Amino acid sequence: MRFTTEQHLDDGVVERAFTLGEIPGILWTPASASAPVPLILLGHPPLGLRTMYPRLVARARQCAAEGIAAATIELPGSGGRPRWAGAEQAGADLRRTLEAGEQVSDEIIDALVLPLVDRAVPEWRTALDALLSLPDIGGPVGYSGGVISVGIRLALVEPRVVAAGLFAGSFVPRRMVEEARQVTVPLHVLLQWDDEGNDRQAALDLFDAFGSPDKTLYASMGGHAGVPQHAGEDAARFFARHLRQ
Amino acid sequence: MRFTTEQHLDDGVVERAFTLGEIPGILWTPASASAPVPLILLGHPPLGLRTMYPRLVARARQCAAEGIAAATIELPGSGGRPRWAGAEQAGADLRRTLEAGEQVSDEIIDALVLPLVDRAVPEWRTALDALLSLPDIGGPVGYSGGVISVGIRLALVEPRVVAAGLFAGSFVPRRMVEEARQVTVPLHVLLQWDDEGNDRQAALDLFDAFGSPDKTLYASMGGHAGVPQHAGEDAARFFARHLRQ
Repeated sequence: MRFTTEQHLDDGVVERAFTLGEIPGILWTPASASAPVPLILLGHPPLGLRTMYPRLVARARQCAAEGIAAATIELPGSGGRPRWAGAEQAGADLRRTLEAGEQVSDEIIDALVLPLVDRAVPEWRTALDALLSLPDIGGPVGYSGGVISVGIRLALVEPRVVAAGLFAGSFVPRRMVEEARQVTVPLHVLLQWDDEGNDRQAALDLFDAFGSPDKTLYASMGGHAGVPQHAGEDAARFFARHLRQ
Repeated sequence: MRFTTEQHLDDGVVERAFTLGEIPGILWTPASASAPVPLILLGHPPLGLRTMYPRLVARARQCAAEGIAAATIELPGSGGRPRWAGAEQAGADLRRTLEAGEQVSDEIIDALVLPLVDRAVPEWRTALDALLSLPDIGGPVGYSGGVISVGIRLALVEPRVVAAGLFAGSFVPRRMVEEARQVTVPLHVLLQWDDEGNDRQAALDLFDAFGSPDKTLYASMGGHAGVPQHAGEDAARFFARHLRQ
């Protein structure tokens, strides 16, 4: 892990860009931490870190206000990172299906999501190794956001992730629903009730599937990008409850 | 409105029992309010104030901690209050249907709930007149809890109720679902995902029906009486957002 830039944001949060091999990432740490702090991994849709930056830094500031560090990495195939054979094809198949107004098949969803999960989750774990070796990051660790299938797999295989705040999305492979049944960490799931890109019933079924005894569904009005401020605040409190001990 | 007893609880909350004509009620006001405070009407199932007291006083303390007064009244037909013709019959029909494992018919639900709503809502409004005439109660006013049909009607007809935090329950008459479509105040709906006495799909359909542009569904694990502490805290913050201005 190599830090490339460091800047102090106006509220004292320290933002450090890094690279982890070929993977770019960003780490935000709270202003005045006297002891090692907990960490939240900020998940995001595969739109590239540059596009996602304004929303990511806003979420990182919310974490910092709770005394929690936040970090994110570029997803494989996003930003400037190389795509793999099949990714372009799956994306093209999805667009064609949506434009034709047809039902998106399980095959397309699997081809779109499963290789991304298989590639991204080991990278998040490698990032976690590096981040937890820093003197100012102590854990415990939470995962927050999308891609929900990445969050499911990470919550399942990575014992250092002790709480997950997930953003309900469609296009969840059946296999990931099965993996969700085995997830047991405390869970806070945000659902936008009128999400134009989201099948509400599929999201409710996925929430039902999670094996976690402590899980909350927080559904708000509005479309995909319309998460109200109080939903973000309540998610922040979920993490504060589980990470600040 | 006639106050009958007054006691100071250990956290400084003042609890006053009152009667309003033949209707018993309780008012809780925060310890050190320098100006008139907002008010939350504490709804409850028709089990009688005496039975409900421990849960009501806990909710009132949560309100007081936010600087908000809380009040409740005995429902018609509950506690020592006279039942009306038909109430016994509807209750007996419900018990027989449930014991037989049969589907509860719309007729039974209507007979059980609609007369209660028709009687209870004017009484809550009369109580509101009396409570808002007290020097230490200023408003705005919220309604919190069950019977959800009572909350729906009150939110619809009483313009002084500006926010409602409702507890999802089954046995909601179709007519009340139609009234819910006309409700527009900010809404926070608690749902217990595995509520043994609750049809989950009916609760989700009712949430969907509400006309409020600002509505949140907060679903937690567990049965009817298992609302987790954080769900109560988040509901308290909903009211603080809308009543403390």
